[in-house]
Amino acid sequence: MIDELLRREREVVEAALARLLPNDAWPERLHRAMAHAVFAGGKRIRPVLARLAHRAAGGDPDAVTEAVCGLELIHTYSLIHDDLPAFDDDVLRRGRPTVHVAFDEATAILAGDALLAEGMLLIARHPQGAAWAARRAAAVELVADAVSARGMVGGQMEDLQATGQVAGVDGPQEERLERIHRAKTGRLLTASVELGAALAGAGDQLAAFSDFGAALGLAFQIADDILDATATARDLGKSPGKDAEAGKLTYVTLYGLDAARTRLDEIEAELAERAAELEGPDGELAALARFVATRRN
Amino acid sequence: MIDELLRREREVVEAALARLLPNDAWPERLHRAMAHAVFAGGKRIRPVLARLAHRAAGGDPDAVTEAVCGLELIHTYSLIHDDLPAFDDDVLRRGRPTVHVAFDEATAILAGDALLAEGMLLIARHPQGAAWAARRAAAVELVADAVSARGMVGGQMEDLQATGQVAGVDGPQEERLERIHRAKTGRLLTASVELGAALAGAGDQLAAFSDFGAALGLAFQIADDILDATATARDLGKSPGKDAEAGKLTYVTLYGLDAARTRLDEIEAELAERAAELEGPDGELAALARFVATRRN
Repeated sequence: MIDELLRREREVVEAALARLLPNDAWPERLHRAMAHAVFAGGKRIRPVLARLAHRAAGGDPDAVTEAVCGLELIHTYSLIHDDLPAFDDDVLRRGRPTVHVAFDEATAILAGDALLAEGMLLIARHPQGAAWAARRAAAVELVADAVSARGMVGGQMEDLQATGQVAGVDGPQEERLERIHRAKTGRLLTASVELGAALAGAGDQLAAFSDFGAALGLAFQIADDILDATATARDLGKSPGKDAEAGKLTYVTLYGLDAARTRLDEIEAELAERAAELEGPDGELAALARFVATRRN
Repeated sequence: MIDELLRREREVVEAALARLLPNDAWPERLHRAMAHAVFAGGKRIRPVLARLAHRAAGGDPDAVTEAVCGLELIHTYSLIHDDLPAFDDDVLRRGRPTVHVAFDEATAILAGDALLAEGMLLIARHPQGAAWAARRAAAVELVADAVSARGMVGGQMEDLQATGQVAGVDGPQEERLERIHRAKTGRLLTASVELGAALAGAGDQLAAFSDFGAALGLAFQIADDILDATATARDLGKSPGKDAEAGKLTYVTLYGLDAARTRLDEIEAELAERAAELEGPDGELAALARFVATRRN
């Protein structure tokens, strides 16, 4: 069921992205770089998550497709900047050259900047119509806060500090890992769930969607840490084992593989419970959560 | 009159920026880098312009101070990224070390990213209250479009291509210069005027504000090009003559100093007329336009 659901959902998102992000506009090089990163076969977890949360909160997901595509553009911006030489210095992403390799560093920085602006624009513009205006403004606020210095970008900063790539103050590693995971991956995933729910006017139920999103973010990141330590390059589309090599602080490098797997199982159980509260038994959010926790790439 | 007006306006903006951008939050290094760039004594032209346009369109500028500070954060992000080694590789900005020199490259990229997100957040959040919601969403849309790949970031891209720093297609230099100026500096200055007017509900008058903003953007950029060719390092707070040295395409390098001055005089006259239409004779926008066209740093 989940494979079919995800396939259909991704088709909707891919078609919307292709419509929303022209790659022949001025300046051509910049738009090619943006398209290179966006159309690289990502899983589209964030927009799909937002659409499913929107349905679980009583809305019609097709009404918010354009808005939730903003999440994918913002996620893509963060990947482009994370891959830069000053950060992880990655040459491959999803089996293809990273943007600064395929183009150059300046173009990659600008492509990231432009995708962040474009993502915000989509969320501010859609769904169109005066009736949606208040929800659109709230949606931008929610997503901008999630990716701000207090959120995703803050997590990228402390992640660099944790590896010693840039100067930073030390502290208990357990707390630091918690902060990095919550901020760097967790905040935008949580915001994806919140965006879907908020655009449906979730009101009092919004906090329950947030909690589900936060747990999902943690599951996603632990699964990612496990994958980096265990998967093959072919599965990942990038070099595995890079975390340990780069001295990255991850669930696996800090607690070991067994403890990471145990923790992931616990969160998977928690996610099933939280999803059942939001959508009843055997719903789409529960299926997506299982997929995230058990994914192999 | 203009000096006193600008002094008062800047005080209001500085106080709001200090309130809105805490520099002791997590992660401390990132917030210090953001503050280093934001509190470097800029002229605050964009938020001041937006406040004055808001008043000219019939609004109370104090109602929009927080929102217009978003413009200054977004402008500051663009300066940080423009100064990076992959771009202009500048070591001084307003007489102080640039962010990547005072901190490091990764921190500078993240500080720019965070300021862009924070700027969008301020515009989505302020002025608060349900009555403003539709205007807030429209404001984010307007500013995001201005800084997108079709606007400011597109201009940065073609500026790099014009100097040969990155690959690009050639074309008539005059058209190229026009595109770069309109996009790189012009769009955010125009959006500043538009933001002020739109938040006042300018409606049909918005196009007239846009035209004034576009002319002001052009005046600003030509004045900048003239200053780079003629000012001393002390006036500029950065090295003068860098444009010619770097092979930059500017009004002065393309048309010469005399032609640039003649063009600036023409636009100054146009600006006075446009301002008179918007606010009557001897208004604040006219004074600000004169200041921009005749500034010495």
